[in-house]
Formats: sequence, structure tokens, C-alpha cells
Amino acid sequence: MSEQKGRFITLEGGEGVGKTTNINFITAQLDAAAIPWVKTREPGGTPFAEAVRNLLLASDTDAPSHLTELLLMFAGRADHLDKVIRPALAKGIWVICDRFTDASYAYQGGGRGQSETQLALLEKLVHSDLQPDLTLLLDMPVEAASLRVDNRGQQRDRFEQEQLDFFQRVRDAYLQRAHQHPLRFRLVDASLNLEAVKTQVGEYLKPLIDEALATRSSV
Amino acid sequence: MSEQKGRFITLEGGEGVGKTTNINFITAQLDAAAIPWVKTREPGGTPFAEAVRNLLLASDTDAPSHLTELLLMFAGRADHLDKVIRPALAKGIWVICDRFTDASYAYQGGGRGQSETQLALLEKLVHSDLQPDLTLLLDMPVEAASLRVDNRGQQRDRFEQEQLDFFQRVRDAYLQRAHQHPLRFRLVDASLNLEAVKTQVGEYLKPLIDEALATRSSV
Ligand SMILES: Nc1ncnc2c1ncn2[C@@H]1O[C@H](COP(=O)(O)OP(=O)(O)OP(=O)(O)O)[C@@H](O)[C@H]1O
Ligand SMILES: Nc1ncnc2c1ncn2[C@@H]1O[C@H](COP(=O)(O)OP(=O)(O)OP(=O)(O)O)[C@@H](O)[C@H]1O
Ligand SMILES: [Mg+2]
Ligand SMILES: [Mg+2]
Repeated sequence: MSEQKGRFITLEGGEGVGKTTNINFITAQLDAAAIPWVKTREPGGTPFAEAVRNLLLASDTDAPSHLTELLLMFAGRADHLDKVIRPALAKGIWVICDRFTDASYAYQGGGRGQSETQLALLEKLVHSDLQPDLTLLLDMPVEAASLRVDNRGQQRDRFEQEQLDFFQRVRDAYLQRAHQHPLRFRLVDASLNLEAVKTQVGEYLKPLIDEALATRSSV
Repeated sequence: MSEQKGRFITLEGGEGVGKTTNINFITAQLDAAAIPWVKTREPGGTPFAEAVRNLLLASDTDAPSHLTELLLMFAGRADHLDKVIRPALAKGIWVICDRFTDASYAYQGGGRGQSETQLALLEKLVHSDLQPDLTLLLDMPVEAASLRVDNRGQQRDRFEQEQLDFFQRVRDAYLQRAHQHPLRFRLVDASLNLEAVKTQVGEYLKPLIDEALATRSSV
């Protein structure tokens, strides 16, 4: 078993920007480097947190209050960290996560208007000791991303049913967050064709993979 | 409609101490004084928060992490405050609530070991502006209360399945909380027979009812 801690990589961005598509590209790169990984997502990632996700995304019941939505996001996250993320990282397994706390800043903060103070307080309560090593923000205009969601042709959940101005605020909040954390964030132009997007993702991933390989060969 | 804000009364105590039984006695007293009231409970109190309650009490799924449980309690509470408690109080309707934030201090704090700092932080986030006007703590030895739960003969939920030392910590945390908030708390000896318990409850309730009647007749 590796002595090295695993790397924690998150993919962020609005609906339909290509997060799920690019995660599969990332795990293929890790396989090629024989790096062990686990792929997971938020909201969700544990059976209990997936049950919370179902409550959160349901569009047929009454909507929760905004503060309730925010607290539920962090409730699921605490379970996910406890049972999946921290144990994997401790064993040297890389964690590739489809959305994490930056999504709460973007959706519950930017989208719903919860204050940055509230967000920061919950972030500190739930993972003061841990931040992603790398956050790939897939950024593109919201109208074009919305078309991709339509083309995918599934029923829209409670968030996907929001209007364009909501997604514009989400995008702005994501960009602000990237600006505030320049060391951890990498901005990917998600409006390009998939091959061009993958090329950018691969370039941002490469230093981490190279470092892991160098550490391994020096042991 | 009354100009006066409604009173917020909470009933607290471990499993089987008589909270639900005595709420019905309280609402009968309010009816006799022609005071409008709503009876509610936590976890729960709104359709969304009741769905969260079901997640929390289910004993057939994997248990959530302790921090997750704590956050879920406050998530449901935020919805309950937003949609039921605050609107009722604003309209002059009294709210009689079976458990509230003191139960989080007792169960998630005393029982599960979450820190008072974490509890206080969430309390401040969710209802910094509001505290119960009166909290009746029904206190009795945990062994005797557990027998009452057995006699009721329903299946035990995830909390009711805990061991006596858990309920002892819950009782201790409730008593500590009462000690810290002497103006709001009233201690009821719940080990007495039901008539004696009701007499105590009635005595603690009387000043609030008298005040409401005096305000009304002076208008
Ligand atoms: N660069 C791209 N160019 C064109 N189409 C793309 C590109 N990347 C992904 N897509 C397509 O857009 C749709 C949305 O992609 P994907 O599901 O990966 O996005 P997502 O960010 O995971 O969305 P969601 O937030 O809804 O989970 C899919 O049909 C996918 O094939
Ligand atoms: N003072 C009393 N003496 C004897 N039995 C009582 C007394 N008060 C209530 N009981 C009985 O004890 C049982 C538990 O009472 P009750 O359901 O009101 O408690 P509770 O505090 O609401 O419990 P829970 O926490 O499980 O909701 C019931 O069967 C009730 O009839
Ligand atoms: Mg996706
Ligand atoms: Mg009860």
C-alpha cells in the first residue's frame, strides 16, 4: 500500500458543461499511470447522502427553505467525507469528485443568495482540515450549456428547472471563487469541442500525475 | 387578529417521559382560555422536514455520520421555523413544539458527543433571533422512562434503540442546559403519576396564560 496520501480532485461548473464526461477521461489517465482512484459525486456519494440527494433534487414535493437546502448539502457532504473521501485519501487512493463545496458557494450562495459568511462557517465546520488539491472549473456561457442539457433529453431536476439568470449567478459565483483560490482552481474553456477540452484537462492533470510517478520511482 | 406575538413553548426530555401526553393537556388549557395555538414537533413539522425525519429515524439503513445527523436536525429545523413557527408566532398563534434545539444539545451533543461549540454555531445560524418563551423539561430516571416506551409497545426507532448509558448522557445534557438557561427552563418531575405531572405543567403555564388574558382585557 502506498505511503503517499491520495490526491483530491474536484470538477465544478454549471449544468451540462461536461463534468461527468471529463471525469471518465481523468480516470482513464490515472489508469494509464497505474494510480488507484475512486470516482464519486455530490450531492451524494454514500447511500445515506444519496437519500439526501433524492430529497434535494425532487421536483414533485414542496421545495425546502434556502437555509435548509444549504444545511442538507453540508449534511450529505459530512457523511461523504467521513465514509468515502477521507478513508480513500488516507489509503493513497485518489478521489475524483463531481462537484464539492465550491458548488455550494455557486448554487446556494450565488444562485439562492445565502451569504458567504454562512457558507464559510459550514465549510469550516465540515472540512476545516481538507481542501481539494485541484479543482477544474469547466466554464462556458449558460445558454450554450443549457442546450447541451436539453440535448441529453432527460427530465430536468429541481435545479435544472431554474431560469437562465439563476445559472448566470451560479457561473459568476464560480468564477469569483476561482479568483479567490487561484492555486487550487484551473479554468477550463468548456465551450470548446470535447477533444480541446480534454487537452486542457489533461494538461492541468499532468503535473500531479508526474509528481506521483516521480515519488513512486524514487522509493 | 391579535396584535400580540404568539408564545413559543417547547417540551423536552428523553424517550417516554410524557412529552406528547402533556402537549395535549397544554392545548386543552389554551382552548379554555380561547388562545389560538398550533401543535408541532421535531424532527419534522413540515412535509419536507418530516421527510428528513424519516431519513433520521430509519433503523434499517446505514446510520449517518454524527456530524451529518446534527446538520440534518438543523436543516429540518430551518424549514420548520421558516414555514410554521415564525409565521404562526407573527400572527399571534401560540406554538407548542414537541422537542426543539435543546433536544439537539441533548441527543447530538450529550448522546453522540458533538461539541457545544458546534451546537452553538448551528443554533446561531438557524435561529439567532428566536428562543422559546418557555421550555418544560420533563425529567425522570432513564430506566423508568425506558419501561414506559416498552409498555407503549411500538417498534423502536434508531434513537430508541440506543443503550441506557446513551440516555443517561442525554438526561445529563438536558439538565445542564436547564441549568444554563434558568429563565426559560422549568423542570418537571416526570416520574410522578400523570395527574401530578399535569399539575406542575399547569402551574408553569399559568403565568403566560394570565398575561395573555390581562393583555387582551386591557385592549
Ligand atoms: N465539449 C463538449 N462539446 C459538446 N458537447 C459536450 C461537451 N462536453 C460534454 N458534452 C455533452 O454535453 C452533455 C452534458 O455533458 P455532461 O453530462 O458531462 O455535463 P455535466 O457537467 O456532467 O452536466 P450535469 O451538471 O447536468 O451533470 C452531454 O450530452 C455530453 O455528451
Ligand atoms: N406521568 C406518567 N405516569 C405514567 N405513565 C405515563 C406518564 N406520562 C406518560 N405516560 C405514558 O408513558 C408513555 C410515554 O408517554 P409519551 O408518549 O407522552 O412520552 P414522550 O415523551 O412523548 O415519548 P417519546 O419521546 O417516545 O415521543 C405513554 O404510554 C404514556 O401514556
Ligand atoms: Mg453530470
Ligand atoms: Mg412523543
